Amino acid sequence: MNKTGLLIVISGPSGTGKGTICKALVHRKDYFVSISATTRNPRVGEVDGESYYFLTKEDFIDRINKDDFLEHAEVYGNYYGTPKSKVLETIESGKDVILEIDIQGALKVKENYPNGVFIFILPPSMEELKNRITKRGTETEESLMTRFKCAYKEINYISKYNYAVVNDTVEEAVNKIESIVLAEKCRVDRIKTTTILDSKEGLIHEQLYD
Amino acid sequence: MNKTGLLIVISGPSGTGKGTICKALVHRKDYFVSISATTRNPRVGEVDGESYYFLTKEDFIDRINKDDFLEHAEVYGNYYGTPKSKVLETIESGKDVILEIDIQGALKVKENYPNGVFIFILPPSMEELKNRITKRGTETEESLMTRFKCAYKEINYISKYNYAVVNDTVEEAVNKIESIVLAEKCRVDRIKTTTILDSKEGLIHEQLYD
Repeated sequence: MNKTGLLIVISGPSGTGKGTICKALVHRKDYFVSISATTRNPRVGEVDGESYYFLTKEDFIDRINKDDFLEHAEVYGNYYGTPKSKVLETIESGKDVILEIDIQGALKVKENYPNGVFIFILPPSMEELKNRITKRGTETEESLMTRFKCAYKEINYISKYNYAVVNDTVEEAVNKIESIVLAEKCRVDRIKTTTILDSKEGLIHEQLYD
Repeated sequence: MNKTGLLIVISGPSGTGKGTICKALVHRKDYFVSISATTRNPRVGEVDGESYYFLTKEDFIDRINKDDFLEHAEVYGNYYGTPKSKVLETIESGKDVILEIDIQGALKVKENYPNGVFIFILPPSMEELKNRITKRGTETEESLMTRFKCAYKEINYISKYNYAVVNDTVEEAVNKIESIVLAEKCRVDRIKTTTILDSKEGLIHEQLYD
């Protein structure tokens, strides 16, 4: 049996709790979590290869040129990206990969890997999203409103995703995501070979059975 | 909120255990089970409206003419069919409907209701399928081989289905089907309205939230 793993993309506006959901997912099951690369300096307590892969600008650009990112972006002069080879190797080995990423990043990943499972995390309500963004409390009223309006607009991108999961409670959201993963593994259009039966040998193709 | 229910079609070759799976599904959760109509005579112990809806040939043909079947077929001079109105009403009311049906029937249902969730039940192996068909023990060697060959050919229709579930154990198969149902309810393409945000009112469309 040579089943490949799934790339499970957990995405949505900031403040919807996608980080908490991913932590809970990994706590329940041994998923491989994709770690981003960045050229920004490590903050206190951040460990290379855990928080991020910290790269020099030269290294990062070199890897862009080698097409080694599923997506990358420049934000305020720093580069951020999702390393490609590690993710693809893990999927090939049959293990599922979790990728937590913002909406712009997810849409780029989808261009490069349309076979992923794209899950949009929604806040319980827009009121609750406002509360969550406000509670972080590190920003001015104006920047809060900007972030809220941005999150609000971003919800329109939901149509580009396969699934929408409302984050009412983390447990329920994680249950739904686990069901989505299990269901995706049963999808007929994920079975690689079109010939289910080998007409000569009369054997059901091994892909149907673990 | 006005979410419609799902039509969950459980299908596959005879001997794969789809009947047992459906019983176990309904035992776990209060699904509405679609009951077939037939013109054949009730057998001892069969109750009208439970085993089947027993109709006269005239009534049956009248309902065919009124387009009141999701599918129907004539077998050895008797009619069999899946009544349409009851299934559609139940789905409209928001409740999920289970329909256990053979492959030819499922393909006709798909023509009339492509929005259904079509699940193909596979035997643990072709050897096991042979054992299961043989164990019923009411048939000659020749008719057993005919049934086995038929089941064998029918597996090719799996490509017309959305999901494939191997019936290794009933419990595992039922878990998978429950995950499929939960995942389907999260599918973005099941959200009716393309406008997620009402641009005038600035409200997330109610369909996203229960």
